[in-house]
Amino acid sequence: MNSVIAITAGEPAGIGADLLVALAHLPFENACLAVVADAQLLEQRAEEIATPLKIKFFNEHAPQPHIGDGTLTVVHAPLAQPAVAGHPDKNNSPGVIKQLDTAIQGCLQKRFSALVTCPINKAVICQAGITFSGHTEYLAQACRCNSVMLLEAKNLRVALATTHIPLQAVAASLSKSHLKKVLYALNRGLIRQLKIAAPRIAVCGLNPHAGEQGCLGREEIDIIAPVVAELSAQGLAVFGPLSADTAFTPRQLKSCDVVLAMYHDQGLPVIKHAAFGQIVNITLGLPFIRTSVDHGTALELAGSGRAQTASLEMAVRRAVELCERK
Amino acid sequence: MNSVIAITAGEPAGIGADLLVALAHLPFENACLAVVADAQLLEQRAEEIATPLKIKFFNEHAPQPHIGDGTLTVVHAPLAQPAVAGHPDKNNSPGVIKQLDTAIQGCLQKRFSALVTCPINKAVICQAGITFSGHTEYLAQACRCNSVMLLEAKNLRVALATTHIPLQAVAASLSKSHLKKVLYALNRGLIRQLKIAAPRIAVCGLNPHAGEQGCLGREEIDIIAPVVAELSAQGLAVFGPLSADTAFTPRQLKSCDVVLAMYHDQGLPVIKHAAFGQIVNITLGLPFIRTSVDHGTALELAGSGRAQTASLEMAVRRAVELCERK
Repeated sequence: MNSVIAITAGEPAGIGADLLVALAHLPFENACLAVVADAQLLEQRAEEIATPLKIKFFNEHAPQPHIGDGTLTVVHAPLAQPAVAGHPDKNNSPGVIKQLDTAIQGCLQKRFSALVTCPINKAVICQAGITFSGHTEYLAQACRCNSVMLLEAKNLRVALATTHIPLQAVAASLSKSHLKKVLYALNRGLIRQLKIAAPRIAVCGLNPHAGEQGCLGREEIDIIAPVVAELSAQGLAVFGPLSADTAFTPRQLKSCDVVLAMYHDQGLPVIKHAAFGQIVNITLGLPFIRTSVDHGTALELAGSGRAQTASLEMAVRRAVELCERK
Repeated sequence: MNSVIAITAGEPAGIGADLLVALAHLPFENACLAVVADAQLLEQRAEEIATPLKIKFFNEHAPQPHIGDGTLTVVHAPLAQPAVAGHPDKNNSPGVIKQLDTAIQGCLQKRFSALVTCPINKAVICQAGITFSGHTEYLAQACRCNSVMLLEAKNLRVALATTHIPLQAVAASLSKSHLKKVLYALNRGLIRQLKIAAPRIAVCGLNPHAGEQGCLGREEIDIIAPVVAELSAQGLAVFGPLSADTAFTPRQLKSCDVVLAMYHDQGLPVIKHAAFGQIVNITLGLPFIRTSVDHGTALELAGSGRAQTASLEMAVRRAVELCERK
């Protein structure tokens, strides 16, 4: 049976809608799509970028394979206001979150096999008075489980111990119990969702040079090393803490399946330098597969017809692949 | 006239001595070397790695070109204890610092044209009760000026606004006045020392996604953006704050000569992933040129004969080149 991949449109003023219109013309073997979006927005954006689009409404009892003939199968979830490309409107934020909730519930109730998300504008959601620090965090809360954010490129996987928090809050967020939860979720996710039999996990230090034996901070000695030792004794193939500046050298990368960075900008600049546009963001630890693009809302490109679909295409293909392996 | 390049041996138990012995056999056009080290350590290490070595003592009145015939010109600066490869001894730390001081004084007094440093083990120096957070910081203090740490590879330059401090101290270390000093020193250094006429400087944010308009931290709004605006109004080609995760994408890098990262592990993992072993560490803002290798003391390789000289060779060549351009 074909997998049903739910895709949320994300920020209505961003390139999400552009990408979905383009997706209507790309075939995905063995997959049905369920695009959770405002159908009018899709039609309007298709017109703006002069691309033909036919909309069908999703029927969970008879999902149709996505053959790329210009048709999108849509779960209509209306927005409060007509969206203008390039100009986010915080009045649409509740609708954006509602679309996400619809997709999550569908996944939890097994109507959808996996979730792919287009980018959201956190600042706009935040201005609307909604607490939202990122998809990864929101999904973990909605599914009541420990999730891990993993970025995957051809030759490199980077996972994060902490995600979208101010830099000054990072050190205080790192506790033994938190790090253990992350490592267990990561290890389990790599085994069960990515089918890596005995994943080798390289753990970065928090401080420059992994604290240089306590000279440049003590979190390595007090938190990271003891957790690595404990999990290692339990048979997990974890090692570290490594100095982050040399944890990503090609030689070092050969000895691991994933690098766990302690925070957002310790790991993501590397993988986005190495493979921007060729990266899939995977959330491990959820009861379903979730992938995402590696870029933002790109407001300046919305409605221009110049948005690149490569990353969304990869995210969908990877979701289909991971569903098939389940 | 030939430039005289002072080279410090760094941690005596590390690969510094190995690299210097190897350097004796590499010719450098238009350069004299003055290796500041314990001559006995060099002879002993040469024997261990079975490489011929002839030592001459440096004569500032008649510096000899380094022709790579197996001779090293040495400024003898003895250590307290015989060094054992792979086993640092904190009793040698004062001697290591003394070597560095000798080299710095020689540069300030124009006996040497430039300084190249082999790696030091900060933890061992720290255990000896000496305050030392890194060469860059030590040099700035010794020369009483604002210095900037810059790593340079073929297609990428990364500078740091803060260097070797615990991660939890980073946010508090970033003030408007500090950032201004760094940007002025960086701009001036790129113009005067690297001869880039109007350097374009991309400034990273401190927080994930450059704070996402205040949602993930306010340092971008309160500190970085105002400083960038002020210096930009003064005619400096600075721009930002950029989200660090996408500041290093190939497309973004085309629009700048250097990326200024706010802290160590925001910038260095990227350049070391991209070009490890092909990077020169340059300290800008000093009254003389200083370059360094991009690796650490590699204790496990000391005395093995397997240490790679490529990075030290590049550091010396770049120092010679920058001296010639002065």
